[in-house]
Amino acid sequence: MFIQFITTGGTIDKIYFDALSQFEVGESQLKHILNEGLVEFEYDIVPMLQKDSLEMTDEDREQLYEFIAKGDSNRFVITHGTDTMPQTADKLAGLSDKTIVLTGALTPARFRTTDAVFNVGMAVAAAQVCDPGVYIAMSGQVFPAGEVRKNREENRFEKLP
Amino acid sequence: MFIQFITTGGTIDKIYFDALSQFEVGESQLKHILNEGLVEFEYDIVPMLQKDSLEMTDEDREQLYEFIAKGDSNRFVITHGTDTMPQTADKLAGLSDKTIVLTGALTPARFRTTDAVFNVGMAVAAAQVCDPGVYIAMSGQVFPAGEVRKNREENRFEKLP
Amino acid sequence: MFIQFITTGGTIDKIYFDALSQFEVGESQLKHILNEGLVEFEYDIVPMLQKDSLEMTDEDREQLYEFIAKGDSNRFVITHGTDTMPQTADKLAGLSDKTIVLTGALTPARFRTTDAVFNVGMAVAAAQVCDPGVYIAMSGQVFPAGEVRKNREENRFEKLP
Amino acid sequence: MFIQFITTGGTIDKIYFDALSQFEVGESQLKHILNEGLVEFEYDIVPMLQKDSLEMTDEDREQLYEFIAKGDSNRFVITHGTDTMPQTADKLAGLSDKTIVLTGALTPARFRTTDAVFNVGMAVAAAQVCDPGVYIAMSGQVFPAGEVRKNREENRFEKLP
Repeated sequence: MFIQFITTGGTIDKIYFDALSQFEVGESQLKHILNEGLVEFEYDIVPMLQKDSLEMTDEDREQLYEFIAKGDSNRFVITHGTDTMPQTADKLAGLSDKTIVLTGALTPARFRTTDAVFNVGMAVAAAQVCDPGVYIAMSGQVFPAGEVRKNREENRFEKLP
Repeated sequence: MFIQFITTGGTIDKIYFDALSQFEVGESQLKHILNEGLVEFEYDIVPMLQKDSLEMTDEDREQLYEFIAKGDSNRFVITHGTDTMPQTADKLAGLSDKTIVLTGALTPARFRTTDAVFNVGMAVAAAQVCDPGVYIAMSGQVFPAGEVRKNREENRFEKLP
Repeated sequence: MFIQFITTGGTIDKIYFDALSQFEVGESQLKHILNEGLVEFEYDIVPMLQKDSLEMTDEDREQLYEFIAKGDSNRFVITHGTDTMPQTADKLAGLSDKTIVLTGALTPARFRTTDAVFNVGMAVAAAQVCDPGVYIAMSGQVFPAGEVRKNREENRFEKLP
Repeated sequence: MFIQFITTGGTIDKIYFDALSQFEVGESQLKHILNEGLVEFEYDIVPMLQKDSLEMTDEDREQLYEFIAKGDSNRFVITHGTDTMPQTADKLAGLSDKTIVLTGALTPARFRTTDAVFNVGMAVAAAQVCDPGVYIAMSGQVFPAGEVRKNREENRFEKLP
């Protein structure tokens, strides 16, 4: 079993710089999360972007689409900012012969209490057992692309009504 | 979506008592893990046993089997010690109309670095997207019951050769 | 032994709100830190301010001064933002019959890796063993007020040259 | 400012080996704790023993005594098991021209919640501000050697009555 990971930034990788009193996307924590999960399958991580997902452009999504379309792997896990995760999932929905799972976090992975580890665990499981298609793994659930939205007020992902 | 959780003990829930310099199975950490994962689905947790899995008896496994057989839910996640997890999975394999996922941890959930959170994340995803059957979610992988063993020397779960 | 704690905000108590993608001063983590430290002395915590220390005013410092001057305790630990911690220490330097220790953190206490716990440990020790006076406990060191500055570029506290 | 650290084992450095379902003294976590504390002073760490303190012998204590007596430094912090920490402190009490602080933990440093970081923070502060002598930094307090005991039932250090 092989999974191709792609990191694009988002809250999951945010870091706090005291020198600036700012909070920015830092180096990906994905490798640390997989090490902590004691995973024993083959994988590769491609750091593609380091952006807040509100700043992702059509070109960014096109680049992601092309990378996956041309990739040899059948299983992809993408870490992504939460605000436009459904939008990116929709864009990738045409790639129907691969299993693609997007995940991220509502609280940075560098926090003592974070949903990042749990979410990546879900995404890794979904990438290996789901039929080909595009999914979002957040809020304890695996949603098919096109059927999910982020509810900002409630700070959760939920089924489209 | 509803998941019935059952806790049975194991390394995932081990705690260290300095007063005795001993390491024993303590209260389950599962609720904390689900809170940290910011899960938003309905669930219930039944604490059934608090045992090292080497001490699980046939009666314990029978009790677990009966509880699941009579349960209303179609999705079960069981936290379990790692040493006899495959044996319990085999016992439950007859319950083929429900999706049952066993998981646990090689390092206690109370540790700063632990596979517990990642593993429960995998189990929760598998319980909702896998076909009915019995599975083990460990070492970054979702294994069907009967096709997996714990390799103690390498401290990992792996496919049966 | 009794220590009076006063919390005023700063990086030590910062929290990340995904809904706004902002990083603000949240509820104080001090009680959690003292619980984790398994402390067994008597203490009280007064939450006085919840501010980034760059926003602290002369009135805020006057309020802090008055509170300590009128207080019954001889030992005070103040959690404080790092940017103006030396300035507040200077203001309190007149209160020479009490032992007053300011501390804080360069990384929020809610992070998995943070200097907050270590720093509060230092401050608690200094408050009970130092002679009356005002001190800053940061960067692994206990500095007398008036002899220390924050070096923003190096992200550390250091002796004045 | 320079501090000489000496590690001797104890609960602070305990690790859990799932392969054996045992809990043993592992590599010292002290370097990680000092890194997390963002300390900026000069120091050196000597790993002298890796023992449960109940297994410490008179020879071990003699070795520790000799090392400190011959050392150039005036400030020592010793991480030590809690059960015989007061006994070792008494043994070192003759070394009255140096400041020597013993500390450790009631819960292993590898745990998510541990008193280890707080305690080392206290010890580092005490080593630099206390008069020459031997001290124990535990349970949120800095005790002079000879005036302190471990209360096993209450799982804390306390003043001798």
